[in-house]
Amino acid sequence: MKTYRLASREEHPDDTIIKIGERLTVGGRELLVIAGPCAVEGRELYLEAAELVKAGGAHMLRGGAYKPRTSPYSFAGLAQEGLEILREASRNTGLPIVTEVMDARELPLVCQYADVLQVGSRNMQNYTLLKEVGKTNKPVLLKRGFAATILEWLLAAEYILAAGNSQVILCERGIRTFETYTRNTIDLGAVVAVKELSHLPVIVDPSHGTGRASMVAPIARAAIAAGADGIVVEVHQNPTEALSDGFQSLTPTCFSHMIDELRLVAEAVGRVLPTY
Amino acid sequence: MKTYRLASREEHPDDTIIKIGERLTVGGRELLVIAGPCAVEGRELYLEAAELVKAGGAHMLRGGAYKPRTSPYSFAGLAQEGLEILREASRNTGLPIVTEVMDARELPLVCQYADVLQVGSRNMQNYTLLKEVGKTNKPVLLKRGFAATILEWLLAAEYILAAGNSQVILCERGIRTFETYTRNTIDLGAVVAVKELSHLPVIVDPSHGTGRASMVAPIARAAIAAGADGIVVEVHQNPTEALSDGFQSLTPTCFSHMIDELRLVAEAVGRVLPTY
Amino acid sequence: MKTYRLASREEHPDDTIIKIGERLTVGGRELLVIAGPCAVEGRELYLEAAELVKAGGAHMLRGGAYKPRTSPYSFAGLAQEGLEILREASRNTGLPIVTEVMDARELPLVCQYADVLQVGSRNMQNYTLLKEVGKTNKPVLLKRGFAATILEWLLAAEYILAAGNSQVILCERGIRTFETYTRNTIDLGAVVAVKELSHLPVIVDPSHGTGRASMVAPIARAAIAAGADGIVVEVHQNPTEALSDGFQSLTPTCFSHMIDELRLVAEAVGRVLPTY
Amino acid sequence: MKTYRLASREEHPDDTIIKIGERLTVGGRELLVIAGPCAVEGRELYLEAAELVKAGGAHMLRGGAYKPRTSPYSFAGLAQEGLEILREASRNTGLPIVTEVMDARELPLVCQYADVLQVGSRNMQNYTLLKEVGKTNKPVLLKRGFAATILEWLLAAEYILAAGNSQVILCERGIRTFETYTRNTIDLGAVVAVKELSHLPVIVDPSHGTGRASMVAPIARAAIAAGADGIVVEVHQNPTEALSDGFQSLTPTCFSHMIDELRLVAEAVGRVLPTY
Repeated sequence: MKTYRLASREEHPDDTIIKIGERLTVGGRELLVIAGPCAVEGRELYLEAAELVKAGGAHMLRGGAYKPRTSPYSFAGLAQEGLEILREASRNTGLPIVTEVMDARELPLVCQYADVLQVGSRNMQNYTLLKEVGKTNKPVLLKRGFAATILEWLLAAEYILAAGNSQVILCERGIRTFETYTRNTIDLGAVVAVKELSHLPVIVDPSHGTGRASMVAPIARAAIAAGADGIVVEVHQNPTEALSDGFQSLTPTCFSHMIDELRLVAEAVGRVLPTY
Repeated sequence: MKTYRLASREEHPDDTIIKIGERLTVGGRELLVIAGPCAVEGRELYLEAAELVKAGGAHMLRGGAYKPRTSPYSFAGLAQEGLEILREASRNTGLPIVTEVMDARELPLVCQYADVLQVGSRNMQNYTLLKEVGKTNKPVLLKRGFAATILEWLLAAEYILAAGNSQVILCERGIRTFETYTRNTIDLGAVVAVKELSHLPVIVDPSHGTGRASMVAPIARAAIAAGADGIVVEVHQNPTEALSDGFQSLTPTCFSHMIDELRLVAEAVGRVLPTY
Repeated sequence: MKTYRLASREEHPDDTIIKIGERLTVGGRELLVIAGPCAVEGRELYLEAAELVKAGGAHMLRGGAYKPRTSPYSFAGLAQEGLEILREASRNTGLPIVTEVMDARELPLVCQYADVLQVGSRNMQNYTLLKEVGKTNKPVLLKRGFAATILEWLLAAEYILAAGNSQVILCERGIRTFETYTRNTIDLGAVVAVKELSHLPVIVDPSHGTGRASMVAPIARAAIAAGADGIVVEVHQNPTEALSDGFQSLTPTCFSHMIDELRLVAEAVGRVLPTY
Repeated sequence: MKTYRLASREEHPDDTIIKIGERLTVGGRELLVIAGPCAVEGRELYLEAAELVKAGGAHMLRGGAYKPRTSPYSFAGLAQEGLEILREASRNTGLPIVTEVMDARELPLVCQYADVLQVGSRNMQNYTLLKEVGKTNKPVLLKRGFAATILEWLLAAEYILAAGNSQVILCERGIRTFETYTRNTIDLGAVVAVKELSHLPVIVDPSHGTGRASMVAPIARAAIAAGADGIVVEVHQNPTEALSDGFQSLTPTCFSHMIDELRLVAEAVGRVLPTY
């Protein structure tokens, strides 16, 4: 049943450390914090958010220009206009950006703007997409499918590795279970398992993993304590007015406070939360 | 939360009846039986299988030319060569064919060969693909995602309907649960629910729904008794030698026997299993 | 892992047929229909319900005197008074009764009144209770735990069989999954599996299995078509006023109509719905 | 739907701090570490294990005298003999003990020996048992049912509180999901949720929560970082020879090492791992 090789720790005993932009790495001693609004909703709002999360301690920006939405009638992102805003925010702050790509046809365009390509949870088994991002030279943030086993997740990574791209960053973002109080059930056991089974870095998304802003900081702390290599969190100036996922977005103040707490936990487990 | 309109029974109280080829329909009194091997593995094998399932009572052929596989190292289908074999089998038997399309870029090619386009379980939330098949004039067999709620499934159908294609056939194929004895847990409650909530036809795939050949016939009977509009089943001459899903494939003899039993259940619930 | 023996079909190839009262059996060609309100709420109401379900075609009465309730503040049953009402209803109608026992200490009392002992879903792994009912000479209706695997269910039956009581009737009543539209996900695959793996009779509870009155009849038909040996359904004169589970209770008229439909499906699969 | 009151933080804003024996507390700033073999297998083995976990930093002993086992043919505990061994180990080490009670009839006996009563995962909805432990004056360790929602878990606690016993310690031990690599999916989001919704202390069982010895320490660290009030872990001198759950048991050396790491994480989140 186990058919991943390139992703396995047996074949590659040392941790893979992936370089992002000029000075960031993920998978080594230094932790990676990615933050930003769920979607790029408008230029001014996003540029301001970027400055705020940078001030709060983020190392990298996130934001969706192409949004997979359950309903065809929901806001689906600004597309190329969103990509341009992301690039401007990156220039202003000096932080690299990660953004989702949903379709092979959009890939060349997204590659012009993004530092890291995100494959979202619903596309984890979109094998044509996996093969295409595997042909690029960009790091890929591969979110776990919301109902994917650990084995299937590593096999999805294997698709990218087998296509020639060794820069895969895994991201645990919660799985679908019977529990309804939380949006998903964050599976930190999977983080521990993946660190044993694979050499790839793995980060955690406590925003989607819980679906509740008040739970993001404790789960971020737990993720780092469990051995995750970083976190990706949603931050919005006015969570209640966000066009997408406001209920799980931190305010910039809460984000900044969380980073201070996280620094202590990082040190307790022998890791570092870098400041630039 | 409910944001499907075109798929809802409130907006469209009468059952949608979809015409396939010259003489088939799905969604009316007549039931639809689709059968064939999981993948098109070779020309002679497939052409023979097509004749056998026709003789056993199938109305339509199935077979994958593009196969989504969990591992990048598994057999992934014959691509265009597979499509040509499917077309030849269709000419020989007079039965229409359904085959999976995994990527928007393959869509024009697949449309030249297929009578019905299948969107597979792992692509149920591949929204770019849904929008593209929504722009064609082919009926679409939309499999339920293996961890999709009924609401998400109807919203996926809504994507296709909203793009202009009203010919959506839903297909329940089992969901992922804690149970491991069966490959998936077939959810016949979802069939009943979808018939209440929507006007679209819904068929059942007892092969993937159980993952065990011995369970296919009883679940097919149950599906029809619950109100499904048809079934799609995997049949292979030598299940133990199949390149994909042999463990859940019926032999042609078992298939033929199942059809005889199904005819009685169909009549008991006021439906007809047509013979041509 | 497999450690059931007495419950396995290998050790006991023939179907077990269990006798209930003077003339009923379950597990043979004749199907068993059990019906009644969820809880015994009062004497007159219950006696009337008993007459109505008998007229509609039920072979046996159900009703809870001891009710396991998620909240300590919900109606928990009439206890001994409820048992006396059940007995009176049984005398009036000539139908045997099944009622739940929740605790070993109540068992001697319940045995004085019940024809069949029910072990509820939440107590399927209450091993002390299983061993105690295994020491009685009453048939036991063993509901599947709402998150129990098929293996665990058969092992729970094994506890009863190993204690000396061979009269175990299994009951599939839906499992807990991610789907929220239905109260539970009815697992008819488990019915088929259990008929293969074990010689014990298995019936289906479409009321708890769906949690929606409108879905009870189609799922009851599907259960019989899949090979179940009977059904247990909730019927209430005024579902909207029921103290427990009204939303999933049939009216006596709907129940009677369902039985007529069920008779046709039973014949289609070579079974009989007896009339007395 | 929400019908718990006594367990809710609204009714009782301050954290409940429960006293155990002479000097332990749980729910305050000091964390609680409970350790020991899964089952009491024999006198010498258990007395030695007790000394070893005490030396490693445990504050309290665990061990089963009555074991709920999926199969009726598995080792089910030494019963009263086991209780006597537990008491002897407690006298020797000065550490209090927690042990499971499975049945109301055993309760008076267990109360003579145990400092804390454990209600196991499979009995979380055994309402008669909950009411009985609610009438004692012993603290109760209430494990979450393996498929219980957070709401159902708090309602189970409410049963105990409503019966008069306010000393309930919640214990998250993993839930049943589709993932099979781990025995259960540890739900640290539930720990965070319960700390928001309730004033009761909550501890985590990383042994059952992962089912893999190598994963216990990282998940224990994560639990403390998430805000848990303590942990309960399985420790065995020879895990491979344990009669129950050896695969998830730590050796005394690993346990001791884990405690050292845990101390650092505790301090990072403002908690203390006391040494006596």
